[in-house]
Amino acid sequence: MKIITGISDMQSFADSLRSQGRTIGFVPTMGFLHDGHVSLMGRARQSCDIVMVSIFVNPTQFGPREDFSRYPRDEEGDRKKCEAAGVDVLFMPAVAEMYPEKPSVFVVVEGISDVLEGAIRPGHFRGVATVVAKLFSSVKPHKAFFGQKDFQQCAVIKGMVKGLNLDVEIVVMPIVREKDGLAMSSRNSYLNVDERRRAAVIYRALFAAKQLAAAGVREPEKLRNKIQAILAEEKGISIDYIEIVDPESLAPVNAVTENMVLLVAVHIGSTRLIDNLLIL
Amino acid sequence: MKIITGISDMQSFADSLRSQGRTIGFVPTMGFLHDGHVSLMGRARQSCDIVMVSIFVNPTQFGPREDFSRYPRDEEGDRKKCEAAGVDVLFMPAVAEMYPEKPSVFVVVEGISDVLEGAIRPGHFRGVATVVAKLFSSVKPHKAFFGQKDFQQCAVIKGMVKGLNLDVEIVVMPIVREKDGLAMSSRNSYLNVDERRRAAVIYRALFAAKQLAAAGVREPEKLRNKIQAILAEEKGISIDYIEIVDPESLAPVNAVTENMVLLVAVHIGSTRLIDNLLIL
Repeated sequence: MKIITGISDMQSFADSLRSQGRTIGFVPTMGFLHDGHVSLMGRARQSCDIVMVSIFVNPTQFGPREDFSRYPRDEEGDRKKCEAAGVDVLFMPAVAEMYPEKPSVFVVVEGISDVLEGAIRPGHFRGVATVVAKLFSSVKPHKAFFGQKDFQQCAVIKGMVKGLNLDVEIVVMPIVREKDGLAMSSRNSYLNVDERRRAAVIYRALFAAKQLAAAGVREPEKLRNKIQAILAEEKGISIDYIEIVDPESLAPVNAVTENMVLLVAVHIGSTRLIDNLLIL
Repeated sequence: MKIITGISDMQSFADSLRSQGRTIGFVPTMGFLHDGHVSLMGRARQSCDIVMVSIFVNPTQFGPREDFSRYPRDEEGDRKKCEAAGVDVLFMPAVAEMYPEKPSVFVVVEGISDVLEGAIRPGHFRGVATVVAKLFSSVKPHKAFFGQKDFQQCAVIKGMVKGLNLDVEIVVMPIVREKDGLAMSSRNSYLNVDERRRAAVIYRALFAAKQLAAAGVREPEKLRNKIQAILAEEKGISIDYIEIVDPESLAPVNAVTENMVLLVAVHIGSTRLIDNLLIL
């Protein structure tokens, strides 16, 4: 596995692969890799000639009171997981390589960046869209793979790709869950044993709402109430939002239909977790 | 000369050229081509294997009270000029191809987009940066050629390329002038005979200020006054701005040095013209 840290080295290497007619599959990550990331690498491995993974904890997508400095890191472990997954190139730029100066150039995806996570984390999706644009310029992928766990992030990136005509196919892969249903996330490492046990309630709540919809309930309010009631079964869980929206526009739905997504964001102790479930 | 109107056709063709190891030189234009554009094509012809020109009058860089609808167009004449200049590909997307929906994704270059032209034309450089990003995604050039006449535009695009790590070399070519010194511009076609004669005062004013600097004058105010006095020699010229700035930051200089640029924007009748002169 080749390790590249410089942007122009990355671009030259990508050019040489492309000129040989090889397809590049790309998995951008913030590291501290789990089975969700590994599933993305596996899919890239199946569908592309070369698999590239980036590890970059992007400061510009964290708010001033968020967890940038304590975001979990494990370079050695990440490297082993990438090798085991058959990754060809690990791109690990330093912060000073990605942002040699105070950032002043941004990609903005209006509308869908401003709701849900964006309403609570102002500037978050501007940071995400911009760093993904920079990573795409560096890695020059044919396809890029993202996890559905960050549902809104996927929508913002698809919006950016369409709006800027980026020649990259975005592939969104299903959420990988722990045995008790908790969506895999690097931030799960923040949870203590008791919080970890209680966190399983998030998926139980989403799943119960999905069952209600399957049983014919058509009022979004009833689904939201169900999620809220189940979350209340565990102590110490505070809710940022419970929303039922159209998967493309992210606008709230008036009636439960067969194409919508349930999204929740909660705090358990000092840890903020998000999850979602598609109703198709 | 090949004519392409679809973005994905353009991308496929660019990919095929790149995979053959051919370098792509790109001249983005809004059409109504003049010798300034032709000089960019000539430079591209010299330094790249394939020369691509785009013609697209970009609605998103015009303000609501600006001249989008009456901007001059001459498809037949432009085509002939491109053929004569040895252009290989003319990319002419329709507005509906570039903006199938109301634009919601933008590239923003903060700071330098907000002064000079940006202060008078809010949103202009957001429109410019975004459309150039979209054109770069379509044409996939190795080098792109711009005219120094739009000095601030060149700075914004260089800023965007750096900030988003776009793998494109930006080449800025000198202003091409008419015999009387007027900078070539598609908008010169708006001038009537008398306005056209008076417009030559713009370059005379810039040149006189440059001579003052060469003679050792160090106060920006004296250069500005000189420009203003000479512009006043012709009737009916109203000044939007006269500025002396650092060529990279576009910040006003406190003292005249050997690395600065004089910029002016004026109205002659209903026509707005800009020009600039480097002091090196």
